[in-house]
Amino acid sequence: MDLNIIRQNTIGCADKIFLNSAGGSLMPSTVVKAMTDHILLEQQYGAYEAADKNEKHVNRFYEEAAKIINARPENIAFTVSSTDAYAKALSSIEFKDGDVIITTNDDYISNQMAFFSLQKKRGVKLIRVKNLPDHELDLEDLENIIRKYNPKLVAVTHIPTNSGLIQNVEGVGKICRQYDVLFLVDACQSVGQMAVDVEKIGCDFLTATGRKFMRGPRGTGFLYVSDRVLERNMVPVFLDMNGAQWTDFDDYTLLKTAKRFELWETSISSLLGFTEALKYANEIGLENIENYNRKLAEDLRQRLQNNGLKVLDQGQNLCSIVTFVPQDGNIENIYKILKENNVYFSVSNKSNALIDFTLKGLDRAIRLSPHYFNTNEEIARVLEILE
Amino acid sequence: MDLNIIRQNTIGCADKIFLNSAGGSLMPSTVVKAMTDHILLEQQYGAYEAADKNEKHVNRFYEEAAKIINARPENIAFTVSSTDAYAKALSSIEFKDGDVIITTNDDYISNQMAFFSLQKKRGVKLIRVKNLPDHELDLEDLENIIRKYNPKLVAVTHIPTNSGLIQNVEGVGKICRQYDVLFLVDACQSVGQMAVDVEKIGCDFLTATGRKFMRGPRGTGFLYVSDRVLERNMVPVFLDMNGAQWTDFDDYTLLKTAKRFELWETSISSLLGFTEALKYANEIGLENIENYNRKLAEDLRQRLQNNGLKVLDQGQNLCSIVTFVPQDGNIENIYKILKENNVYFSVSNKSNALIDFTLKGLDRAIRLSPHYFNTNEEIARVLEILE
Repeated sequence: MDLNIIRQNTIGCADKIFLNSAGGSLMPSTVVKAMTDHILLEQQYGAYEAADKNEKHVNRFYEEAAKIINARPENIAFTVSSTDAYAKALSSIEFKDGDVIITTNDDYISNQMAFFSLQKKRGVKLIRVKNLPDHELDLEDLENIIRKYNPKLVAVTHIPTNSGLIQNVEGVGKICRQYDVLFLVDACQSVGQMAVDVEKIGCDFLTATGRKFMRGPRGTGFLYVSDRVLERNMVPVFLDMNGAQWTDFDDYTLLKTAKRFELWETSISSLLGFTEALKYANEIGLENIENYNRKLAEDLRQRLQNNGLKVLDQGQNLCSIVTFVPQDGNIENIYKILKENNVYFSVSNKSNALIDFTLKGLDRAIRLSPHYFNTNEEIARVLEILE
Repeated sequence: MDLNIIRQNTIGCADKIFLNSAGGSLMPSTVVKAMTDHILLEQQYGAYEAADKNEKHVNRFYEEAAKIINARPENIAFTVSSTDAYAKALSSIEFKDGDVIITTNDDYISNQMAFFSLQKKRGVKLIRVKNLPDHELDLEDLENIIRKYNPKLVAVTHIPTNSGLIQNVEGVGKICRQYDVLFLVDACQSVGQMAVDVEKIGCDFLTATGRKFMRGPRGTGFLYVSDRVLERNMVPVFLDMNGAQWTDFDDYTLLKTAKRFELWETSISSLLGFTEALKYANEIGLENIENYNRKLAEDLRQRLQNNGLKVLDQGQNLCSIVTFVPQDGNIENIYKILKENNVYFSVSNKSNALIDFTLKGLDRAIRLSPHYFNTNEEIARVLEILE
């Protein structure tokens, strides 16, 4: 992992301190080149003919996406986002009135919306697992709820949008396998940031998004689907010709792979860019990225605390999402100073993590999300600015 | 409508005869520029910050999309394709066991797949309206079926993928309004090719795709949703934070506009490119485009027939999709000769239009789809090549 080369490939980091990879990161040059090259090809040859010319690169997407989570290409579907992947996964489960979904207090707003839809439309019951004192979900409580309610699905966000927490998804997966419950992991903040291994997690579905820590284009993501799900012939509520073949006037034959979760139409330029982003991360190695990121985020948290700021992150295992407020909770000054000094970051709002913020008694927090193209010097500089 | 300027803006048409706008068309230069400019902005500033810089252009999408079908911006949702829009529309209807959907023999394969899913998962009954001798759907039969079965939905593809037909959607809309039945129009081949007016059609949903006759990027489309649907609080099965606000731990407040049918994450570069494509078409004027296209396609059909080829298109009203085979039905030679002479076209396959091809006793046909950037000289040249 050569930081000089990485920063040369990341032209956006030259003139600013970019700490918003949890929102949307900076794409490496190879990603941008793959995208713009393909768009120019489309301009010259038309949408379909350009796709034909790049067909083998399209197929590489499945290999690189599989590699980044230790799966097989057959278990990967391209989607336009993690939320899109999430909706497709949920739609393949036949929920009936009274069915139970178990989730956490820290699941992402988009997932919560999907659960509410199922509550209203299908009469599904939603139960949230308790948190341990350090905020991680309580595995004992989870097991008790599973025993008591025999749920149809356990759904856990691997890394919530704003609390720094890494949930113990391996622990959850073990229990789900033991009781044969479907397990859905929202990994939109974890894949690309750290090593993620679907074999170790033991999940049935895992959703990821391109634009965040994977450094891919907007409008990209993927869905991992386990062999169990494929063998049970589970399908999203709306297939199209990508997922099945029209074999009889009133019937179809299902595709064997996870591609049955895709719609046919895709932005090929975005898919090719995403493939380059995945390749870039795979070549550096996710273990390397994880180790680098952990040190950088720990250093940042430590320095913020030393500076008298209130770091809000809770959990045994913390990630590259760092949230904080000043002691009085009013972030306006900090917001202004960081903006003025060309630091790129985002603000976490109560409306996106209602439960977490309500419990913390806050409306907003500053969120910094360093990634492997950031340097120790940049972290030191941010603290200088805050001082 | 200045053909010279249009062809200068369409750099792909200089060295080939491009007749595949029904598959994926050639983008005007302004579309490509909007896309690549935004990708470079994302490379420099990151995904979110680049979107902020182009926010007012993002809002223009809704105005241009509304204009092209005579709707209001509040009734438009951005989608990644017509099929995506179609799935979202269908998912907002609560189908119960025994509910009836009325469709045609010429509905697109992706729509058929969606209906089969509803048959299998929700016990929905599918009834297809008879065709008139000239292949157009039979309005009398439609009205009889509606009276007899009180259907939940009538779903009609405006222009099927391969028969040249323009369905009488205004006639269908009138009957649907009379009996208060939801009406869904797949307009993926018609918007951009001809003047489409949702007020005249009287539909509840209309789906369109960017890459075809609208000459937009891949991975773009839109959904029109009527005021009736919005007022009935209909929502797609999976909302996300774009469609609703998280207001209570277990509840949300619904958005008033069609944006409730969108997911939040979007390829902004594709959306901006699509906006330019819509603007380009709106500036030329859809009436102008329709008139030009009608003459060109009529001329092409006439010449093909004069040349002894078998034109397969049927209907009172024909469009810019021209399908034909030689008298013996074997397209191999024609396929080869057109390819060798740099004519871009596509082949319609039985598996994509099973009912239509089965009735015609064919497996494949050559499909030429001229658009307003094509010239009379190009049409003449194609006939020369075929001779």
